Amino acid sequence: MAFTGLREAGLTKARIEALTDGIFATVMTVLVLGLRPPTIDLNTPGASLSSELFKLAPNILTYALSFITLGLYWVGHHNQFHFVRRTDRTLLWINIVFLMSIGFVPFTTSLLGAYPGDPAAVRAYGANLVANGLGLYGTWWYATSSRRLVDRDLASSTVALVKRRILVGPAVFSTGIAVSFVSPLASTIIFFLPIFYYILPGHIDVHIRGEHGHEEK
Amino acid sequence: MAFTGLREAGLTKARIEALTDGIFATVMTVLVLGLRPPTIDLNTPGASLSSELFKLAPNILTYALSFITLGLYWVGHHNQFHFVRRTDRTLLWINIVFLMSIGFVPFTTSLLGAYPGDPAAVRAYGANLVANGLGLYGTWWYATSSRRLVDRDLASSTVALVKRRILVGPAVFSTGIAVSFVSPLASTIIFFLPIFYYILPGHIDVHIRGEHGHEEK
Amino acid sequence: MAFTGLREAGLTKARIEALTDGIFATVMTVLVLGLRPPTIDLNTPGASLSSELFKLAPNILTYALSFITLGLYWVGHHNQFHFVRRTDRTLLWINIVFLMSIGFVPFTTSLLGAYPGDPAAVRAYGANLVANGLGLYGTWWYATSSRRLVDRDLASSTVALVKRRILVGPAVFSTGIAVSFVSPLASTIIFFLPIFYYILPGHIDVHIRGEHGHEEK
Amino acid sequence: MAFTGLREAGLTKARIEALTDGIFATVMTVLVLGLRPPTIDLNTPGASLSSELFKLAPNILTYALSFITLGLYWVGHHNQFHFVRRTDRTLLWINIVFLMSIGFVPFTTSLLGAYPGDPAAVRAYGANLVANGLGLYGTWWYATSSRRLVDRDLASSTVALVKRRILVGPAVFSTGIAVSFVSPLASTIIFFLPIFYYILPGHIDVHIRGEHGHEEK
Repeated sequence: MAFTGLREAGLTKARIEALTDGIFATVMTVLVLGLRPPTIDLNTPGASLSSELFKLAPNILTYALSFITLGLYWVGHHNQFHFVRRTDRTLLWINIVFLMSIGFVPFTTSLLGAYPGDPAAVRAYGANLVANGLGLYGTWWYATSSRRLVDRDLASSTVALVKRRILVGPAVFSTGIAVSFVSPLASTIIFFLPIFYYILPGHIDVHIRGEHGHEEK
Repeated sequence: MAFTGLREAGLTKARIEALTDGIFATVMTVLVLGLRPPTIDLNTPGASLSSELFKLAPNILTYALSFITLGLYWVGHHNQFHFVRRTDRTLLWINIVFLMSIGFVPFTTSLLGAYPGDPAAVRAYGANLVANGLGLYGTWWYATSSRRLVDRDLASSTVALVKRRILVGPAVFSTGIAVSFVSPLASTIIFFLPIFYYILPGHIDVHIRGEHGHEEK
Repeated sequence: MAFTGLREAGLTKARIEALTDGIFATVMTVLVLGLRPPTIDLNTPGASLSSELFKLAPNILTYALSFITLGLYWVGHHNQFHFVRRTDRTLLWINIVFLMSIGFVPFTTSLLGAYPGDPAAVRAYGANLVANGLGLYGTWWYATSSRRLVDRDLASSTVALVKRRILVGPAVFSTGIAVSFVSPLASTIIFFLPIFYYILPGHIDVHIRGEHGHEEK
Repeated sequence: MAFTGLREAGLTKARIEALTDGIFATVMTVLVLGLRPPTIDLNTPGASLSSELFKLAPNILTYALSFITLGLYWVGHHNQFHFVRRTDRTLLWINIVFLMSIGFVPFTTSLLGAYPGDPAAVRAYGANLVANGLGLYGTWWYATSSRRLVDRDLASSTVALVKRRILVGPAVFSTGIAVSFVSPLASTIIFFLPIFYYILPGHIDVHIRGEHGHEEK
């Protein structure tokens, strides 16, 4: 039984990524399924499918927010595993807990869709987003402490930069939860903000580019 | 941390493909789930399951249309990524927005299934198909502009040929939407047309075959 | 753009397999979801959850039948692609039509679960199983005609053996449909028979083993 | 047709893993979908979404239990396939039966969620967990008997250690079922216990680490 450590590590990493990609793909699909065709009485004067569809606009926006936010976390996981060289049982389990939080998103999204103005729905949704972020942070923190599962010579500045980038999400989402005590609508708007922060190419891309000399993210 | 750019690019491309394949697989499955066994009162004189199943025929046809159309876009994505050599954050996000549009297909399909004659349902479905096509076009446009993420010596004629092929879909689907102001039924028939265009092997296949000298798609 | 034909072919095959595995995984999961907890009135004298669960036994058996039958087709696809060396657009589309048939299984299964004694439900379910088998046959027929997408020196006896094995399914399922005009229950029993035929290691395994000298399936 | 046995074996193993990962990903996602937003009448005095959400706490806990337990079995499968070198038809089928048992988890979980205090629900859920464990045991037993599908020099102590570890689950879950005749609540608590046993790194990790000289699980 002569393994090369690297090959085995790659295999394991590949299966964690496979489960992660599978769960993200299913969650992102199932999310949009929460939208149901409106049931309307076409005999009612003035009732029309198009007016009913316009009433769904806020729901559609909520689902889009969740889809893009899940995309953010998938990209974050993807960037992070770019650096991971080995895996161990603990990393597997931190990842599974992260995925459990991701798996709750269709539930909290449908909650927010059903009760858009309710502070409890806003907070449940926000708490889920915070948990997602902390899960991602946990994976990175565990993998990089004493360079446990990454390359020994990974720059401290890169480790810290990724930590800061990840924590922006939970910080903003927590602010959104706090604001829900004043205005649930403002909270929802705040939940959209991290999208703009994360989608724009940040320092980390420049950093990686400089380090490796190619434009791979 | 000595990466070979190529290996890393392959890894990233592999995960985008994994998410894409996962979402397509789930969407295509979930689509057919919209069909529910008819609930019939077997005591009613003349009521029978087989007659109820025949009434489902238009729904089954709608679902088949969506399944095949999703297949078209999956094949399109697949052909496109054949040429992609590198990835970056922007490509990731164009791809995620494309997948969000794909993820809406079960919703607009069930809408069309529930209100087959309604122009609003026809237009919502058509708009979704147009958005799918534009998402695919966006990926290709971004990847090939200044040969950003493809081989530097990829022929301009290939880039243009793929662009033209992709845009046939949105063009026909837009025509279908316009026709819905006259006849929603005619629209639905028009939505079927791109299937015949895309399924038949086109110039692009010949082109690739000539260029590489093997029968790979 | 210097491709090695083999590597590219491998890539394409990998993505067809990825979509196939993804759809099978989702269909097989979604299938069992058709089982819903019974809604019982625990205040009714004599009503109990355990007696209600026993009443679900035929449904559970139907779902198990579909799950195992899907497993059969997945293994069949898997065995077939063992021999496929190249892909082309036509193979992609035969495969997508095959997957569309597979995607209908949760619908026809829930139909059979809802109307177990109804000949129409039995026939719809049987027709779906026949379509699955013909889809698999189509892939193999297309790939092996003139050795289009397989190794040029693949033995004719292997091609014919695989064809015969695949057709046993549709032949038995068609018999089951015919029997439904006499006894729908007998049909359902007949639908179980191919499981025993396919699960037992057949000549094809011995054949492959002999040819390659290793115990690979 | 000159195969290298190893490459083909790897391919086959890869597809079994792909189906397994896909089914686990879908099951784990679909599980959490069983949670539905509460339907409340906000006009009722004292009714509030937050109080209704608190009532969901036991359901959320049940779903978390199932998610983590599925994670356990996924990790177990993952660890096991680390050692598998070849596959055959029988292994494929043991694995498919194992996956069928995994696929039932959303059903038995929603059963336990709907009837938390009912002994029948507790036993159905426990029986499903036992079946999962026996399925995993079956795979390992079959693969390692006479070193059928693993390396010939795999230590007997490793084989036995893995067997013992796997059987802890079914043993504890069976105890939980027995306890349900006295207290269904106590059963549910017992169902949680294996989580602590499996999540903590055990002798097997130390064993593998010592054998291979790297920290790969």
